[in-house]
Amino acid sequence: MAERWRVYLSGEIHSDWRERIRAGVAEAGLEVDLTGPVTDHAASDDCGVAILGAEEQPIWKDRKGAGVNAIRTRTAIEKADLVVVRFGEKYRQWNAAFDAGYAAALGKRIITLHPEEHNHALKEVDAAACAVCREPQQVVEILKYVTAQE
Amino acid sequence: MAERWRVYLSGEIHSDWRERIRAGVAEAGLEVDLTGPVTDHAASDDCGVAILGAEEQPIWKDRKGAGVNAIRTRTAIEKADLVVVRFGEKYRQWNAAFDAGYAAALGKRIITLHPEEHNHALKEVDAAACAVCREPQQVVEILKYVTAQE
Amino acid sequence: MAERWRVYLSGEIHSDWRERIRAGVAEAGLEVDLTGPVTDHAASDDCGVAILGAEEQPIWKDRKGAGVNAIRTRTAIEKADLVVVRFGEKYRQWNAAFDAGYAAALGKRIITLHPEEHNHALKEVDAAACAVCREPQQVVEILKYVTAQE
Amino acid sequence: MAERWRVYLSGEIHSDWRERIRAGVAEAGLEVDLTGPVTDHAASDDCGVAILGAEEQPIWKDRKGAGVNAIRTRTAIEKADLVVVRFGEKYRQWNAAFDAGYAAALGKRIITLHPEEHNHALKEVDAAACAVCREPQQVVEILKYVTAQE
Amino acid sequence: MAERWRVYLSGEIHSDWRERIRAGVAEAGLEVDLTGPVTDHAASDDCGVAILGAEEQPIWKDRKGAGVNAIRTRTAIEKADLVVVRFGEKYRQWNAAFDAGYAAALGKRIITLHPEEHNHALKEVDAAACAVCREPQQVVEILKYVTAQE
Amino acid sequence: MAERWRVYLSGEIHSDWRERIRAGVAEAGLEVDLTGPVTDHAASDDCGVAILGAEEQPIWKDRKGAGVNAIRTRTAIEKADLVVVRFGEKYRQWNAAFDAGYAAALGKRIITLHPEEHNHALKEVDAAACAVCREPQQVVEILKYVTAQE
Amino acid sequence: MAERWRVYLSGEIHSDWRERIRAGVAEAGLEVDLTGPVTDHAASDDCGVAILGAEEQPIWKDRKGAGVNAIRTRTAIEKADLVVVRFGEKYRQWNAAFDAGYAAALGKRIITLHPEEHNHALKEVDAAACAVCREPQQVVEILKYVTAQE
Amino acid sequence: MAERWRVYLSGEIHSDWRERIRAGVAEAGLEVDLTGPVTDHAASDDCGVAILGAEEQPIWKDRKGAGVNAIRTRTAIEKADLVVVRFGEKYRQWNAAFDAGYAAALGKRIITLHPEEHNHALKEVDAAACAVCREPQQVVEILKYVTAQE
Repeated sequence: MAERWRVYLSGEIHSDWRERIRAGVAEAGLEVDLTGPVTDHAASDDCGVAILGAEEQPIWKDRKGAGVNAIRTRTAIEKADLVVVRFGEKYRQWNAAFDAGYAAALGKRIITLHPEEHNHALKEVDAAACAVCREPQQVVEILKYVTAQE
Repeated sequence: MAERWRVYLSGEIHSDWRERIRAGVAEAGLEVDLTGPVTDHAASDDCGVAILGAEEQPIWKDRKGAGVNAIRTRTAIEKADLVVVRFGEKYRQWNAAFDAGYAAALGKRIITLHPEEHNHALKEVDAAACAVCREPQQVVEILKYVTAQE
Repeated sequence: MAERWRVYLSGEIHSDWRERIRAGVAEAGLEVDLTGPVTDHAASDDCGVAILGAEEQPIWKDRKGAGVNAIRTRTAIEKADLVVVRFGEKYRQWNAAFDAGYAAALGKRIITLHPEEHNHALKEVDAAACAVCREPQQVVEILKYVTAQE
Repeated sequence: MAERWRVYLSGEIHSDWRERIRAGVAEAGLEVDLTGPVTDHAASDDCGVAILGAEEQPIWKDRKGAGVNAIRTRTAIEKADLVVVRFGEKYRQWNAAFDAGYAAALGKRIITLHPEEHNHALKEVDAAACAVCREPQQVVEILKYVTAQE
Repeated sequence: MAERWRVYLSGEIHSDWRERIRAGVAEAGLEVDLTGPVTDHAASDDCGVAILGAEEQPIWKDRKGAGVNAIRTRTAIEKADLVVVRFGEKYRQWNAAFDAGYAAALGKRIITLHPEEHNHALKEVDAAACAVCREPQQVVEILKYVTAQE
Repeated sequence: MAERWRVYLSGEIHSDWRERIRAGVAEAGLEVDLTGPVTDHAASDDCGVAILGAEEQPIWKDRKGAGVNAIRTRTAIEKADLVVVRFGEKYRQWNAAFDAGYAAALGKRIITLHPEEHNHALKEVDAAACAVCREPQQVVEILKYVTAQE
Repeated sequence: MAERWRVYLSGEIHSDWRERIRAGVAEAGLEVDLTGPVTDHAASDDCGVAILGAEEQPIWKDRKGAGVNAIRTRTAIEKADLVVVRFGEKYRQWNAAFDAGYAAALGKRIITLHPEEHNHALKEVDAAACAVCREPQQVVEILKYVTAQE
Repeated sequence: MAERWRVYLSGEIHSDWRERIRAGVAEAGLEVDLTGPVTDHAASDDCGVAILGAEEQPIWKDRKGAGVNAIRTRTAIEKADLVVVRFGEKYRQWNAAFDAGYAAALGKRIITLHPEEHNHALKEVDAAACAVCREPQQVVEILKYVTAQE
């Protein structure tokens, strides 16, 4: 397939899973463009008030930040051929599940990436996915397979 | 507005929030049909294997159950004018966030219903909602307002 | 045509144009359901904080109100076969123009209703409309024509 | 994100806000293509009759002009990832609000840009936007943030 | 099939083909609602200026009329399950072909109804149709077949 | 759920699986409307030429028949909330697989119904389904579950 | 606007209007790609049987040809930003009107190009267009205007 | 037409039909990108368990494989302008018919490629196609015709 693939990497920002997928994609020389949210936690939380002005109430600070981040994430998900959604050990990561639902309704292909312990809690999300991975390297293997030229 | 409203109640199944909304809607005589997932936890978890046959692996039992439940929930969400998504104190409720993302991409109106302590974790979901409620009665008040005839 | 028509009446809330259309539709016995926003100005401005709690900043009071009103207006516009958008002599009525653009992108039929003095300022909106009316009675005449059984 | 962003600049044509955004984007070397309507007021008003022939009635002159301009603006909005809508101090700018509604129904990301005094009149439009800016430089800052590579 | 079918009858207004289909549907007691344009030629041509005011130029008289008629026809085509498009011996009937293209792009089922002599000129339209009929009674027979309960 | 469900029964026409589902639905008193293709094999094969005129070449006889049947089946599938696709022991039933693909792209919920021996050959179709059933009674059980009122 | 425009030239194939638009676009150096149907009349009529095998009945020869041509025309129209539809003095050109309806339902911008004598017969098509031109050079002028960089 | 065409080659993987189309396209120097599923039968069957881990039950091995293959095939079909679907002499190839239905609902142009003996069994699929070919070279001839520059 001559055309490059666009893959959005959604979810957990506290481990190096994106870097591992990037490294695997680069090493294999895949025709894949990887996008994602801003992963600098503080920058992501503060982007709204930093650009648009301070807020006294935390809820409106969060609203402004979520708005600015949505410009980036919604655009990238809509352009993506495939969305990889990572759920880590900690945190609730409702935004990852939200992204998965959003991608599902748009008819995007979805890969989930999470430890086995979350299988039951993520059963609805996994049922909407084409593949459930445990390790970033499995995502890379799938990308190799689906982009292979014959 | 002569036409009845269809409202889907998504999320937490361990408290009586759906009953309280139902009671409020009935008391006010609103032209609103309320739908939702099967809220009998055991029935919901077991529906796949109970109907389609047992599975040895929990992951495939869950997959079968998620598939059967998706017939109900996806159909109801697509028919809904409005989706109310409840996040409770406990559990990860990724399926609620998934439903919210799904509804958002379909262009549905969304109301979230959750305690203040989840404001930050739910900021992306709240930013996609038309209203953030704390109490079921607030959902009922909104339904009164939006369905009022003049 | 056996099926009832759904017509959304958007825009100016300071004159009796809606009542005149309602009266004309009733008098002619048309198979038409008329919907619209809440036209009690104070109730519309205050609905957000009245139901969801007070805000110190006017901008967030307005945001809450706009969210609640959007539940009503977006739902009604999406269900409408035809959207009538009224621009009056006073006020900027950006929300009316917003509704018109929203309806246009959804492929809805649009009728504008405004005095001649606004012709130039509304030229883009009028170009997206099927008809430009000056008087509510003209809207009623169109409804008679388009719903007539032969 | 490797792909270039397409941003449509809608609305007021009497101040230099577009130039300021263009300058900021150029200075920062952003991967952003900026489009917009024809901003030469006379050319925009006259394009219909200049190309398609004169009209005696102003309303039909305007209709012809609006049609030709719509070819440009509708095409650009549909291709845009993000629509920035500017409301100035003067003029009614219903076409800006129309563009915002059109973009909203297409699911585009929207940024509004207007002085605080219009907050209340624009509350419905702002509620559909991801961000409300006061200054063109804030739009540039958002573009930097959402297009940043990590 | 319990649900009633909605069938739009587009095209030629100079022969009694609609009446013959109506009679056949009534006689067979089919669960079918038939809609169509206003078939009173003068009323259809004049509806724009009659309701919205006179025009000096014929082209703008026609534009006004086409706008008002589009409210009726577009709404009915979008609601239709099936569109029957009739091309008669005389007249160019470009609006019939336009309706067929419009219905095709919406994914509607199409039946064409025309004499054999138009086969070549209508080959693109016929290729987009599910059936090519010569007589109104054939349309009735198809309606019987497709709505039959088993 | 107050609203009735619309379920399309696609595929094999040589066994009594549709009758068994109908009987189960009737016995349980479910709010479900069942639709399907014409299952009289000869009538289905001959409908095109019987209504539209004879053809010498079998391929064009088939084309005419497929066109007429498509009016019924496409309309019913588009209206369906759920599509049940049955693959029997004999025949290739490519039209059943076609219906499944069509329903999948429309975002419909799908249930497949086939013996275990076809698991491998139907793996792509089953992966697009919410449930894989072996017996009609299992379809009835799913319908009971998804339509249950609480 | 940096991106190239895609313009489909539909309709009459007996005059040099396409060449004149091509020449004007080339002379002005516009960023516009022009596409269209195969305009060699005999090749267009025969393409079906020439590639797929002879047919005895003219209607099936036409069907095969229409199918092959549809691959080209439907693909090009769907990719187009703008569709120019030409109606000439002779022939019925129902396929041009069909293309216009198809483009209208897809939300494409449309320009019609025809002599004044067809104004009344084309009133529905013109009402769906952004501009009505008499001469190819007017189409070129519009393309200059809508693609102009500022 | 300046833009390259994207053509997806679906179906039978046991003969050299894809190679023959590739060779014809290359020889003619067409602006066509050809994509398709992984055609190494064993690799295709095993991709799920090879990447995502072994399964004891064949049905879940197949489910995993179908999921991974769907990432490739769904993405490629959605990007395709044209889908060629090949049905061979042997095997049931329900996935080919599924792909055809999927492409049809997306509004893609379809070419079927199969021996005459399957005409009757494939009549529904052929009726949704723009052309029915017997030989790969016919597909190449169509590609030459539809991509020809004038």
